[in-house]
Amino acid sequence: MKRIRVVQYGCGKMSKYILRYLHAKGAEIVGAIDVNPDIVGMDVGDFAELGIKTGVLISADADKVLDECDADVAVVTLFSFIQDIYPHVEKCVSRGINVITTCEEAIYPWTTAAALTNKLDALAKETGCTVVGSGMQDIFWINMVAMVAGGCHDIKKIKGAYSYNVEDYGLALAEAHGCDLTVAEFEKTLAHPTEVVPSYAWNAAEAICNKLGLTVKSIKQENVPYTIKEDIYSATLGKTIKAGRCIGMSAVVTIETYQGIVIEEETIGKVYGPEDGDMCDWWIEGEPATEFHVVKPATVEHTCATIVNRIPSLLKAPAGYVTADELEEIAYPVYPLHYSL
Amino acid sequence: MKRIRVVQYGCGKMSKYILRYLHAKGAEIVGAIDVNPDIVGMDVGDFAELGIKTGVLISADADKVLDECDADVAVVTLFSFIQDIYPHVEKCVSRGINVITTCEEAIYPWTTAAALTNKLDALAKETGCTVVGSGMQDIFWINMVAMVAGGCHDIKKIKGAYSYNVEDYGLALAEAHGCDLTVAEFEKTLAHPTEVVPSYAWNAAEAICNKLGLTVKSIKQENVPYTIKEDIYSATLGKTIKAGRCIGMSAVVTIETYQGIVIEEETIGKVYGPEDGDMCDWWIEGEPATEFHVVKPATVEHTCATIVNRIPSLLKAPAGYVTADELEEIAYPVYPLHYSL
Repeated sequence: MKRIRVVQYGCGKMSKYILRYLHAKGAEIVGAIDVNPDIVGMDVGDFAELGIKTGVLISADADKVLDECDADVAVVTLFSFIQDIYPHVEKCVSRGINVITTCEEAIYPWTTAAALTNKLDALAKETGCTVVGSGMQDIFWINMVAMVAGGCHDIKKIKGAYSYNVEDYGLALAEAHGCDLTVAEFEKTLAHPTEVVPSYAWNAAEAICNKLGLTVKSIKQENVPYTIKEDIYSATLGKTIKAGRCIGMSAVVTIETYQGIVIEEETIGKVYGPEDGDMCDWWIEGEPATEFHVVKPATVEHTCATIVNRIPSLLKAPAGYVTADELEEIAYPVYPLHYSL
Repeated sequence: MKRIRVVQYGCGKMSKYILRYLHAKGAEIVGAIDVNPDIVGMDVGDFAELGIKTGVLISADADKVLDECDADVAVVTLFSFIQDIYPHVEKCVSRGINVITTCEEAIYPWTTAAALTNKLDALAKETGCTVVGSGMQDIFWINMVAMVAGGCHDIKKIKGAYSYNVEDYGLALAEAHGCDLTVAEFEKTLAHPTEVVPSYAWNAAEAICNKLGLTVKSIKQENVPYTIKEDIYSATLGKTIKAGRCIGMSAVVTIETYQGIVIEEETIGKVYGPEDGDMCDWWIEGEPATEFHVVKPATVEHTCATIVNRIPSLLKAPAGYVTADELEEIAYPVYPLHYSL
């Protein structure tokens, strides 16, 4: 048994949870990469408030960090799209270092970023390592849904709805979600974008299809305005959004499959009221009709715990780009994350 | 690829669902056993309303049925305790026929029925077949809970509560649940039984421990009365239960483990009101706190679909007594349940 050696690639908000979880579970932090001048040079133990010095200093020189340690895995917490993480993942994979990433598109990027995913897949097979996307979607939007489907006889449709608070991600995102637009204004603009950017639901819904063995016949995404019946104050906008106006939007992805099962997933980004929390609700239409809710899930903590708890199945996976729906079942690690050689 | 050949051992209420699901999924019904004179001799296709004759007649002679077909698996839907199903399971296992059963204790019988389970395990290894208990608990009380645990960092306690309607199971069960007793009467009788009969929660909670790698330090069960604030009519009792009196009870099983995690499960059997449905609620205390509900699950249909969908992982399992928490992940079969030789 030896400790799992990890490079943290990207030292932002999520990485503080991940580093703390990794440390508590007995992993060895052997490198930390970030370009933020405020934290470069900082001991990663101080950065993540581990209570100890690790001796590992956050560095902006990714190549040097990756060359000067023998990491088993790099945890890449940088961006939401494959094209943005690609050069960073390639640095790891070209060195044979396994990669697990919170990048949302990475959960199932085979069609939305086909060329780059294929390149990573081929390269990982050459160097003998594995790349996987994980996070909240892994369990709560994909594998848990597939498991519940396993308790059903005849499925017509799988429908999911999950949400996040627009207030947490700054003004640009709030405006991109149509906050404070009228429904008419929303219809003229966001409802009909010149180019559809796949939402997180797009990739997660494709992963469900992969897990269930379904073949996609058509896939479409609609942007739907989210309005409110009572005025609500948005700290991000610095003003009150009046009743009837948009407090955000949802992207609804609908997949028809050749096997007849429809997958519909809705990601809702809106200004939360005091009673709101993240949402993660699922319905299966068929025999029997099935409904389950994860009640106000702690999305950040679940994302980070899932990333850490996924590492053992990542290390057992075959080389290449493997999606989270294809990995061995995730398990809560009662014992430290050591692994046998 | 060939069809899976199934003997239905026990032709009661559950078997009608199971036979229909098996048939729809492409399994071949090769035998059906029951001693009920009302159905002996009936074509199992008529019995289960499959819309076709199967040519297989329900027979009371289990040995003859098992000898005169080459079944891959027997679906045993007979009783709730291992000692009651034992002779029937032994008939199958001694012939090398795999067994899957709805018997509630069978979900994890290693401690509550140790001797008989060990005998079945040894015999199954000798004849090269597998015995497993499955049903509602498999996914919704065990594997789904363990999967959600995989999205948590630090677990202190796992708590579950699930319910059934006492009205569905006759007068004896209603009385055994304390229906219409006062709380004082309940305390004098059912709260302190001379011998604790392990509830379904006992075995399911032990299965969670097995799945998570936890070692049981202590296990106890308490019978708690369930009262109601308003009068409710019980058709089974044929009278109204007055406010303040018992409408049933819950069995609360608490397991302490050497790893510090507590498992607490509550099975509630009570007279349902018009708004009630089965309950399946879970809470994980720890980081992060996690809560999920399956909303009014269709327990019978889920039990039967899970039994059928479990067959492929049963056929892949090693010989012996294997519990559902140890099998390969269950999957919704988009395609027929054929299997490759």
